[in-house]
Amino acid sequence: MPFPKAVAICDVGTRDGFQAEHAFVPTATKIEIIDAIVAAGVRKLEVTSFVSPRAVPQMADAAEVLAGIGKTSGAEFVCLVPNLRGAENAIRAGARSILLFVSASETHNGTNVNRPIAASLDGFRAIMDLAAGHGLTVHGSISTAFGCPFEGDVPPAKVAEVARAMHAMGIGHVALGDTTGMGTPPIVRAAVQAVRDACPELRLALHFHNTRGLGLVNIVAGLELGVTDYEGSIGGLGGCPFAPGATGNVCTEDVVNLMHELGIETGIDLDALCAVARRVEAYLGRPLPGQVMRAGPRSRLSGAECAVRAVG
Amino acid sequence: MPFPKAVAICDVGTRDGFQAEHAFVPTATKIEIIDAIVAAGVRKLEVTSFVSPRAVPQMADAAEVLAGIGKTSGAEFVCLVPNLRGAENAIRAGARSILLFVSASETHNGTNVNRPIAASLDGFRAIMDLAAGHGLTVHGSISTAFGCPFEGDVPPAKVAEVARAMHAMGIGHVALGDTTGMGTPPIVRAAVQAVRDACPELRLALHFHNTRGLGLVNIVAGLELGVTDYEGSIGGLGGCPFAPGATGNVCTEDVVNLMHELGIETGIDLDALCAVARRVEAYLGRPLPGQVMRAGPRSRLSGAECAVRAVG
Repeated sequence: MPFPKAVAICDVGTRDGFQAEHAFVPTATKIEIIDAIVAAGVRKLEVTSFVSPRAVPQMADAAEVLAGIGKTSGAEFVCLVPNLRGAENAIRAGARSILLFVSASETHNGTNVNRPIAASLDGFRAIMDLAAGHGLTVHGSISTAFGCPFEGDVPPAKVAEVARAMHAMGIGHVALGDTTGMGTPPIVRAAVQAVRDACPELRLALHFHNTRGLGLVNIVAGLELGVTDYEGSIGGLGGCPFAPGATGNVCTEDVVNLMHELGIETGIDLDALCAVARRVEAYLGRPLPGQVMRAGPRSRLSGAECAVRAVG
Repeated sequence: MPFPKAVAICDVGTRDGFQAEHAFVPTATKIEIIDAIVAAGVRKLEVTSFVSPRAVPQMADAAEVLAGIGKTSGAEFVCLVPNLRGAENAIRAGARSILLFVSASETHNGTNVNRPIAASLDGFRAIMDLAAGHGLTVHGSISTAFGCPFEGDVPPAKVAEVARAMHAMGIGHVALGDTTGMGTPPIVRAAVQAVRDACPELRLALHFHNTRGLGLVNIVAGLELGVTDYEGSIGGLGGCPFAPGATGNVCTEDVVNLMHELGIETGIDLDALCAVARRVEAYLGRPLPGQVMRAGPRSRLSGAECAVRAVG
């Protein structure tokens, strides 16, 4: 199958990435970063989570962030909600788009939200009703879709079963999440095919982690399958806080660079996005995993610095 | 084209990687690392360079390294030589396999070795005669094969012309080097195809840098073309010393992990290789870019550490 002509790229850095940061990122900084990502041309972002501030203190300012970001831009600002109460809070704060998540492996779902998968799915029904009443868009996310750090392989049929349950309750767009970077091209192909066979009308997004260096390889596998929606994190924000140096989400600007090099349109200004990534890195005061923000696209030619030592 | 069933992976870390280290790595440490890489199953390594110790002080112990490593292992120990004098020194030190290098772009060759490409190629002839007289194996390496940091795009026809010249003088095995990480899948395809068309009998290796995160993506492009020889650097050693944080060579153990996940044999013990990478990292005292040495292969299941925060 030929690659798609264009793809949609969602940045999850200010939610999935910042959530892993111990030091609180000031609300004004979050807003500035989100607005800058939008200004670079990103049309969909996971901006915050309406979770318990005790569980995730970094997201305690969810309502303020949502109130502060530039809502006239035409970008979709997605808010993660873990339960009905979170959805109520998100609606009260003016959210127009929410994200529900569940794992494809029982052990991970239990560790993450302390209930079986079926109970998570059951809980979504009341949220769907509430969302329908307020005209919200609801997205879904399936964690551990390509492997579970506790159980190992996750059967594609299980991923498809969870996706079908979400689709059946009216969720039209589901991301398959590679929570701990266990995806590989063969596993991605099997999961995507199983989900497509089970619900051909579901719009699928792919969310990879670069934990084993395979994030962009897996994205190319997705492109070969014709998948048009991908997620990334500005600068590669979002490593596991318990494993220093282990990278998390694929880096949005590295994904954009890949797409442009493959002749696939994103609508995103790569230079502008790299500038945002460098600001995030400077703000955090430590190197982030992103590569293209440092090296620039291949079209940026060099004066001299590296070549002399590049023998061989 | 189906992927190859097996590939050969050459580690260049102790040459291409250590060359970029400012602090001298003790000869005994180099020897220990090379022997450990061989013990992990790597059958070909670039072990050192017979260059001027004034130009590259790190390689001043080339003869001692070559004398100290385990020559009965069956691995091929390749020594880079920049000129006839280097080749003579390598032979005197007992080298059985040498590597000649030239760039595919004039500007880079000028910066690197201060002469035109044609002069580099001319210089190879005397080395080839010497090598033939001593029964050496001679490999070739073409730098900037997928782009030049000064000139930008490098015409595939130019890469093919250089490869043909090397092949015509008796070099049977040539690596195309992505010196500053400018390769992309379309560019890799064009260059490999041009070289194959020009000299179908030349055995081709691919040497990628991960400067823009595309190293493993480009390797998959190579696999799709049926290329069976790849180079990597233990731990990802070899970033450009003038661009901290910018990564250099693809990481050998990450390449091995990719191959195994794709069902391609390498003959290498991944766990053992990761252990070597961690020792190199510990020795250098700074994080190296390798991912799999930290995360382990996907089959290594987790107790708990990362999953709790992996919501979404």
